[in-house]
Amino acid sequence: MVAPLNVGIAGLGTVGADVVRLIETQGRALAERSGRGIRVVAVTARSKAKKRGLDLRGIAWAKSPEALAEDPNIDCFVELMGGAGDPALSAIETALKAGKSVVTANKALIAKHGLRLATAAEKHGGALNFEAAVGAAIPVIKTLREGLAGTSVNRVYGILNGTCNYILTRMEQEGLSFEECLKDAQRLGYAEANPSFDVDGHDTAQKLAILASLAFGTKVAESAVYVEGISSITPEDLKAAAELGYRVKLLGVAVRTAKGIEQRVHPTMVPKSSPIAQVMGVTNAVAIDGEGIPPITLVGPGAGGGATASAVVADIADVARGIRAKPFGRPVERLRDTAKAPMERHEGGYYIRLMARDLAGTAATIATRLAEQKISLESIVQRHPDGVDVNGAAKKPSPVPVILITYATSEDAVHRALAAVQRDKVISGRPQVIRIEKN
Amino acid sequence: MVAPLNVGIAGLGTVGADVVRLIETQGRALAERSGRGIRVVAVTARSKAKKRGLDLRGIAWAKSPEALAEDPNIDCFVELMGGAGDPALSAIETALKAGKSVVTANKALIAKHGLRLATAAEKHGGALNFEAAVGAAIPVIKTLREGLAGTSVNRVYGILNGTCNYILTRMEQEGLSFEECLKDAQRLGYAEANPSFDVDGHDTAQKLAILASLAFGTKVAESAVYVEGISSITPEDLKAAAELGYRVKLLGVAVRTAKGIEQRVHPTMVPKSSPIAQVMGVTNAVAIDGEGIPPITLVGPGAGGGATASAVVADIADVARGIRAKPFGRPVERLRDTAKAPMERHEGGYYIRLMARDLAGTAATIATRLAEQKISLESIVQRHPDGVDVNGAAKKPSPVPVILITYATSEDAVHRALAAVQRDKVISGRPQVIRIEKN
Repeated sequence: MVAPLNVGIAGLGTVGADVVRLIETQGRALAERSGRGIRVVAVTARSKAKKRGLDLRGIAWAKSPEALAEDPNIDCFVELMGGAGDPALSAIETALKAGKSVVTANKALIAKHGLRLATAAEKHGGALNFEAAVGAAIPVIKTLREGLAGTSVNRVYGILNGTCNYILTRMEQEGLSFEECLKDAQRLGYAEANPSFDVDGHDTAQKLAILASLAFGTKVAESAVYVEGISSITPEDLKAAAELGYRVKLLGVAVRTAKGIEQRVHPTMVPKSSPIAQVMGVTNAVAIDGEGIPPITLVGPGAGGGATASAVVADIADVARGIRAKPFGRPVERLRDTAKAPMERHEGGYYIRLMARDLAGTAATIATRLAEQKISLESIVQRHPDGVDVNGAAKKPSPVPVILITYATSEDAVHRALAAVQRDKVISGRPQVIRIEKN
Repeated sequence: MVAPLNVGIAGLGTVGADVVRLIETQGRALAERSGRGIRVVAVTARSKAKKRGLDLRGIAWAKSPEALAEDPNIDCFVELMGGAGDPALSAIETALKAGKSVVTANKALIAKHGLRLATAAEKHGGALNFEAAVGAAIPVIKTLREGLAGTSVNRVYGILNGTCNYILTRMEQEGLSFEECLKDAQRLGYAEANPSFDVDGHDTAQKLAILASLAFGTKVAESAVYVEGISSITPEDLKAAAELGYRVKLLGVAVRTAKGIEQRVHPTMVPKSSPIAQVMGVTNAVAIDGEGIPPITLVGPGAGGGATASAVVADIADVARGIRAKPFGRPVERLRDTAKAPMERHEGGYYIRLMARDLAGTAATIATRLAEQKISLESIVQRHPDGVDVNGAAKKPSPVPVILITYATSEDAVHRALAAVQRDKVISGRPQVIRIEKN
């Protein structure tokens, strides 16, 4: 009989407590699946006194994450404290240098220090598993690292932040503003008091950098991701998108182009019929385009104690079974540098919403300016101006929305065309521009 | 440097040829991911002379699958011949008994002889991987075997047959009959000349038996699956379903109930808003409900040379990396017997379509008969009878469709109620009954 895998857990919040419970309740199944027992032998957290509803008798209490990482009784160090730096970083490094395996749900840490930690894991022979860091229980890391090991990936993209998708879903379904939906999300606990990390796209960018590394063999680097959040999106955009057969999602997209790997996070129009467009509320989804095979889409909970704990325990079971995959799929020394893609060179379709001062003249001007940049239009929608008041008298003409969908063109060309239109003074305010991603 | 993994491939059809090509073109990435090279050293197929567009120089040609399985130069035997018996069965058994690992895409063989083969794999220490057998490149086997190792699964269900989903999609979208769509599917190569294996649900049943074993630790057994095909479904059913917010899919469902594990394949009404309802055409999907976590849905190609080869190569890469999971997640000796669930004890909602001879009297009779069986109705739709002819004269009343959606009840109760309604002679023809699966 193989000796059981001895697990130490640093961090006993919702996820940590759920992991302790799962290992307890699923003990027999885990042993059958792993070929050896898995047991929690030591834990640590900020407060020992806090009530957690856990029976921790027989489990040692380490005086610090560092002490737990050093504990010679531990085979597998599970980091569930969070935070992109110490104490998580140094404790994980200590554990890896001692030859232990590490499981973490900490996306920020992996996005920032993943390379350094993977180097330590490879050097000392331990595993570094982080399935829960992206898409919680959705097995997206395992799919990219192992399930598509024989497939050249051309694009990986997804809805990686439940808060943003919740907000966009409610804005679309109820015609509410971004601010109203954000407030509701905060009230319901879907958004933080300081929502910037979520709604400005940084959370998505960290997760995307991890996925891109696994898919394309790039060095994980949040700084290589172009980031744009959802705060500029209006209910009018969502309504226009719907009428044209699209839906707006905050996507993280990593794609192989002729100019290199492009990593970007921004509000995106996706065809309503695409699997990713069906994903509503706090649910996450990742779509993967592999060479020569139709897209694969994985949909599920992107957060939550139970879902995160499920992924953490699966990672622990992989350690127990002796699986030692390269953390980023390939040896760290083979990972390639990646630079932030210059978005002015991005090519794709665009949604453009303008407020025309005077419909007849503006349409002609816009058409001319787009043609000068060789931009072709897939569709154009001019809203009927509400030209008469309730008494039937003609009203003073007010700006009228004009909505354009372009065929694939470069972002540069779009910017040049719109700058010219603005110089022509035929529109009021700034044009709204949203990139289109086709499936 | 670790010695490369030497692969032998039996069967060089579309998938086999694609596997040879993938191992060649993805060679470097595979070596980086696996930590060792992977090379095809020997192959066999029925005809050596056949043109395949493959460069087989330097690759040995074995005189039979059996000879290939015995070849001491081979570490990993890849079976891509198909067929639920010999030569595939005996060749795989030979390879496993020699301590080799085996990769196969052969669902029929795994469904029928999986236990026997898994026993040999466990005894002799080789892997037995069959990701491609269910859902091709969709990583559903890996997700159940590894990704949800720490999660108790309550239900796994899915669209596992592209032919049926293609037919149902076209029937719904174009109002065509089953027969018309089947003919088109045959013309397009989506359905076999003898379509019974697909449309009668047997293909789905074999795949479901494999998924159920991985999810619930049951002995894989096609005979434990209740099976019903799609040939009785009419465009009228699909139209009525749509009006009531449902779509009809051929689902394979394995679910934990108070009475044991229920495995069943049948046309199923699913809420239109569910992820599984969005899956159209030949695409496959699997949804997994784990204890304490929201559903996970995996969507993608369920067949095709490229998608199948992708899964086969990933399985080979797992062998190269030294992964030796138990074929069915748990040791064979721990897998539990499972009996075919008696469907009369199945509990759920039901769609019932009746042709009423005379609307007024029939509605009262039906309501009485359902009430006698304590069946409650979620909705009832009585179609407007086309009671007047083009000249405005009253027509002889003809049977009028009545559509019922019940709340959860037992199948037994539904059958008893409908038998009574038939005895009452208020309907013409047989009632159509379709089970409802809620997400």
